[in-house]
Amino acid sequence: MQDTLISTTVVITPAQLLEHWQGHRRVTRRVIEAFPEEQLFQYSIGGMRPFSELALELIRLTFIGSHGTATGEWKDLEELYTGDTNPATKAGLLKFWDDATGYLNEQWAQIKPGRWQETDAALGQYEGPVYSSSLYWLDNENHHRGQGYVYLRSLGIEPPFFWDRG
Amino acid sequence: MQDTLISTTVVITPAQLLEHWQGHRRVTRRVIEAFPEEQLFQYSIGGMRPFSELALELIRLTFIGSHGTATGEWKDLEELYTGDTNPATKAGLLKFWDDATGYLNEQWAQIKPGRWQETDAALGQYEGPVYSSSLYWLDNENHHRGQGYVYLRSLGIEPPFFWDRG
Repeated sequence: MQDTLISTTVVITPAQLLEHWQGHRRVTRRVIEAFPEEQLFQYSIGGMRPFSELALELIRLTFIGSHGTATGEWKDLEELYTGDTNPATKAGLLKFWDDATGYLNEQWAQIKPGRWQETDAALGQYEGPVYSSSLYWLDNENHHRGQGYVYLRSLGIEPPFFWDRG
Repeated sequence: MQDTLISTTVVITPAQLLEHWQGHRRVTRRVIEAFPEEQLFQYSIGGMRPFSELALELIRLTFIGSHGTATGEWKDLEELYTGDTNPATKAGLLKFWDDATGYLNEQWAQIKPGRWQETDAALGQYEGPVYSSSLYWLDNENHHRGQGYVYLRSLGIEPPFFWDRG
């Protein structure tokens, strides 16, 4: 029985982790919206990428990561999404973002309960437990969105509240 | 049996979540180290706080958060730590950081398995499930450390690798 007792310690359920990530994604979407169109695609500090490029990385990882978590197959973005994967307008970026939101929900529903503790090579190359890859994408989003906050502040623009995930 | 099967879905264990957070804390420690002493305490962009203040917030939340998670008591930092809580040197800040590392390990070991899904008012005021508070502190660290990366890049200093948690 001891094994059973240990294994039933639930820190977080898959549904809670999805909602946690989607809550962060709602904040990141508001950061995209907060940028003026030109600065979204051009403004940077210290030679870093503009926020549009950071957001495109996040979207790409949402598609590839959620599909890979659900299926164990690590495909290229273009195999998973037939829309514009390199939008040059804020409206186009937000559409891509919103399509990733629905895709993430759909893929998450396909993830088998035992999958999280399996070992896999995420994106075909980063070997580790599956839960750690999902946390990596979440952490990476917090990391880059925090950078977007500095861009906005340096432009004199108030970022959205970090704590408001609604 | 259906309930049992659902409840035994383990996304992440408490020990894995601790190691995940401590891995991030090792990266944040390297960010503190990467700042020149003066810039650590004075440099900012867009009216934001210098990185020393962001790091002090992270340390404070590590002490109060881990103790509160373990005990349900939300104490002031000074009740939990008798050392210098407002160091004015990099060496002092790193000592405070390292003391928080040991404290976090000690408190984590006291957290009861059923605690994560309980509801509590974190820091005495933020009502929600306990797991979500712990993720908040981890997310907050990624958020602020990402900002530290921009500070470093704008100073012409290469930040540590985000993906190296060793």
